[in-house]
Amino acid sequence: MAERIRATYWIETPYPLDVAAQVMAGEQSCGTFTRLKAETNELRQAHGARVERIEPLETVSAPSLPILSLPKTNGGAPVFQRAQVELSWPIENMGPSLPNLLATIAGNLFELKEFSGLRLLDIQLTSEFAQAYRGPAFGIEGTRTLAGIDQGPLIGTIIKPSVGLSPEGTANIVHELVSAGIDFIKDDELQANGPHNPLTERVDAVMRVINEHADRTGKKAMYAFNITGDIDEMKRHHDYVLAAGGTCVMATLNSVGLPGLAKLREYSAVPIHGHRAGWGLYSRSPYIGMSYIAYQKLWRLAGVDHLHVNGLRNKFSEGDESVIASAQACQTPMFDAPHNSCRIMPVFSSAQSAEQVGDTYAALGNTDLIYCCGGGIMGHPGGIRGGIDSLRQAWDAAEQGIALETYAQNHPELAQAIEAFRK
Amino acid sequence: MAERIRATYWIETPYPLDVAAQVMAGEQSCGTFTRLKAETNELRQAHGARVERIEPLETVSAPSLPILSLPKTNGGAPVFQRAQVELSWPIENMGPSLPNLLATIAGNLFELKEFSGLRLLDIQLTSEFAQAYRGPAFGIEGTRTLAGIDQGPLIGTIIKPSVGLSPEGTANIVHELVSAGIDFIKDDELQANGPHNPLTERVDAVMRVINEHADRTGKKAMYAFNITGDIDEMKRHHDYVLAAGGTCVMATLNSVGLPGLAKLREYSAVPIHGHRAGWGLYSRSPYIGMSYIAYQKLWRLAGVDHLHVNGLRNKFSEGDESVIASAQACQTPMFDAPHNSCRIMPVFSSAQSAEQVGDTYAALGNTDLIYCCGGGIMGHPGGIRGGIDSLRQAWDAAEQGIALETYAQNHPELAQAIEAFRK
Repeated sequence: MAERIRATYWIETPYPLDVAAQVMAGEQSCGTFTRLKAETNELRQAHGARVERIEPLETVSAPSLPILSLPKTNGGAPVFQRAQVELSWPIENMGPSLPNLLATIAGNLFELKEFSGLRLLDIQLTSEFAQAYRGPAFGIEGTRTLAGIDQGPLIGTIIKPSVGLSPEGTANIVHELVSAGIDFIKDDELQANGPHNPLTERVDAVMRVINEHADRTGKKAMYAFNITGDIDEMKRHHDYVLAAGGTCVMATLNSVGLPGLAKLREYSAVPIHGHRAGWGLYSRSPYIGMSYIAYQKLWRLAGVDHLHVNGLRNKFSEGDESVIASAQACQTPMFDAPHNSCRIMPVFSSAQSAEQVGDTYAALGNTDLIYCCGGGIMGHPGGIRGGIDSLRQAWDAAEQGIALETYAQNHPELAQAIEAFRK
Repeated sequence: MAERIRATYWIETPYPLDVAAQVMAGEQSCGTFTRLKAETNELRQAHGARVERIEPLETVSAPSLPILSLPKTNGGAPVFQRAQVELSWPIENMGPSLPNLLATIAGNLFELKEFSGLRLLDIQLTSEFAQAYRGPAFGIEGTRTLAGIDQGPLIGTIIKPSVGLSPEGTANIVHELVSAGIDFIKDDELQANGPHNPLTERVDAVMRVINEHADRTGKKAMYAFNITGDIDEMKRHHDYVLAAGGTCVMATLNSVGLPGLAKLREYSAVPIHGHRAGWGLYSRSPYIGMSYIAYQKLWRLAGVDHLHVNGLRNKFSEGDESVIASAQACQTPMFDAPHNSCRIMPVFSSAQSAEQVGDTYAALGNTDLIYCCGGGIMGHPGGIRGGIDSLRQAWDAAEQGIALETYAQNHPELAQAIEAFRK
C-alpha cells in the first residue's frame, strides 16, 4: 500500500464529530451529495480520504464563525464541539503536485456549512513530493557560505522608507550600511519594480556599491532584491541580479503562488528570500485559516531558502510563542536523507533590536537565522555602525550565556542600545 | 497628477479611527516606526498612502479578533470602533503589477496589532492595469460562441465522483452527458493530473467521445480540463487539450497564483475556467479576509473567463445575497472602452437543480452564466436527459415569467425535478 498524505485540522461543529469528519473526508475526495452508481465501494476504498484520528476538545455554546444551518436537536440548545481531526489521502489522488495538494487539503472544506471553525494545523507529505520538488537550493549552509558568515546570525536590515526612494537614494543607504559592516540587506515587500525605482536601475546602483566594497574589503553583503512579479519578469530580473553579482532574490510568496515560486527555484542561482506578506489572512482568526507549521512546509518544498517568522515583541499581532514555534519549524527537517531536508533560515524582523536577542537565542538554541532590524540599527545613538555592533554584542553575550547588562558594561554600543530601545 | 489605486476596508479598532487609518496607510507605504532622515516630506507626499475617507460604523465592547495590546484609556473599558476606510496609493509605488498590488493592498496590514478586525472590501484600479494585463480573452461572448449557445445559460455539470475515476470511466460518463445534450462539463478541482487519471489520458478518452459526438451532431460540449499544476506543466497540458480539440481549461486560482494565471492567459487559446477552492479562507470570518468583490477583480484582470460564485441555497456556508452580489460583480465592467471590460461568466454550482433557477434569474436578470448541477442532473428520475431538460425548462419558464409549477404542468421533466428536489 502506497504512502498517504496526512493533514491535521482544528474544527468546531454542532454535528457529531464522526459525522463532521466524514463530511470533510467526503468533500475532499470522492463524496457527492447524491451517491452515484460510479461511486463503487472499490473506488471509495482506493480513493476516499480516511479519517485517521478524532481527538475531542472542549465545547462552546456559541458558534465561533457564523453558521447558517444547525442540526436538529431535541429542543436543547446546540453545542459546538471542538476537536482535532486527522485525515489522510492516497497520493494517487493528486500526485506529488503542490498546487493540487493545496486544493485537496485547503480547498472547499473551509466553506463547509457543517463547521463553525476549521483550521489546517499540520501536514505530512510523502517522499514522492521530495522527489518531485527541489526544496531549498541553499538553505542554512549555502546562505552562510555566500554571505561569508560562518557563525552567529546574519545581521540584517530592510531598506526604509519602504517605498519612495530612488535607485540612487537606495544605494546611498546601502553605502552607509555596508561601510558599517552589515551582513544582509533586503528590499521592503512594497518595493519591487515600481516606476519610481525600477528593479534594474536599483540593481545597478546598489551592486555598484556592494561590489566596490567587496573588492576593497573582501566582505560582500547579501542583498535580497525584491523580484516579485509576473513569471517571465521574475526570470529576467533574477538573471539581471545574477549578472550584476547579486547573491539573493526575494519573492512575496502569497503574491507569486506555489507554482511561481517553484518556477523561480528551477533556475535561481542564488538563495530565495521568502516574504510572507498577507500572512495575517491565514493566521489572524483562531477559527479559520492555516497554521504557519503547515504553511511553511509548502513553501520550503517549493524552494524557498529564507522565510519570515516575525520577531519577539513585534509590531504585529502575533505572540512570542508562535514566533518561536515558526522559527523552529523552519529549521526542522521535512524529509530524511537522501532527500533534501528542506531546512532553511528563519528571518526575524519587526521592531527588533538588541533587546530581543537574549530571549530569541534562549528559545531557539542556535544562530542559524537572519536577524533584521530597522529602527534597532538606524535609530541607534551611535549610528548604523553602533546599531550593528550592538546586535553582534548582544548575540555574543547570548551565546556566552552572559546577561545583557553585564556584557554592556564594557561594550558601549550595547549599553547605548539598551538605553535607547528599552521600553 | 497621476491616477491612484484605491482600496476600501472594513476595520475594527480600539484606537481613534484617524490614528488607526494612518497606521494602515503608513505600514503599506513609506512609514517606519522610527522616522528616518531619508523619509522627507517630499517623499511622503509623493509616495505615502492617503486616507481618502473614514466612515464610522457601530462600536462593540469586545474585540472580534484576539488583540494583544490596547491603548491606554482613562480607567474606562476599551471600546472597539468599526468603520469603513478608503486608502489610495500612487501607481508609482508598485506599477501596474498584480502580485505587487496584492502585497500593497492585502499584505502586512492584516497583521497590524492596532486592529481587532480588517477586511478588504473593494478595489479600484487604474487604466495602467488594463494596459499591462490582458483580462479575459473570451468572456461571455467568446464562451457562447465556442460552446454554440447563443442564448440561455450553459447547462453544465461536474464529473463525479470528484476523484477516483479512470480516464475511460470519465469518458463513459461524458458519453452519457453529451448524448443527453449537455453544454458544459468540468473536472472536479480534486481531479487534475493524479497517477490514477493522468490528464493526457483523460483528454484522449474524453475528447474522443466529444469529437465523435460533435462530428455526428454538430454540437460540441465544452469540457473544462483541470490543468492546475506547475508553470510548464500547465503549458504542456493546455497545448495537449488544444491539440485534441478541447475548448476550455480549468485552473484552481488560489493554487496557481496570480502570476501563474496571467502566464496561462498569455498563451491560452481557449477560455480559462477559474475555480475558487480555498475561498473560505478569505471569506469565512466576518472579521478578517477579503470580499469576493475585490477578489474577483484581481483574477478577471489576470485573465480568467469563468469564475465560481457558489449557488443559491448551496451546501456551503454562504448566504444567497452574497452569491448574487458575486455573480453581478463578475458581469460588471471593470474598465471602459477601449480597454477590456473584463466581463466574465459567473459559474453557479453546489447543490443546484431546477429549484433555484427562478430565484437566480430574478436576481440576476440575465442568462449569461454557467449553471452547473451534479445531483440535480444525475439524480433526476428521468436520468441525465431528464435532468438537463428540466433545467432548460426551468430557465425557459423563468425567462418567460411563468411560475415553475405552471410551466411544469406540460413539461414532465420539470415536474419530476420539482418532485425529486423540492425539500
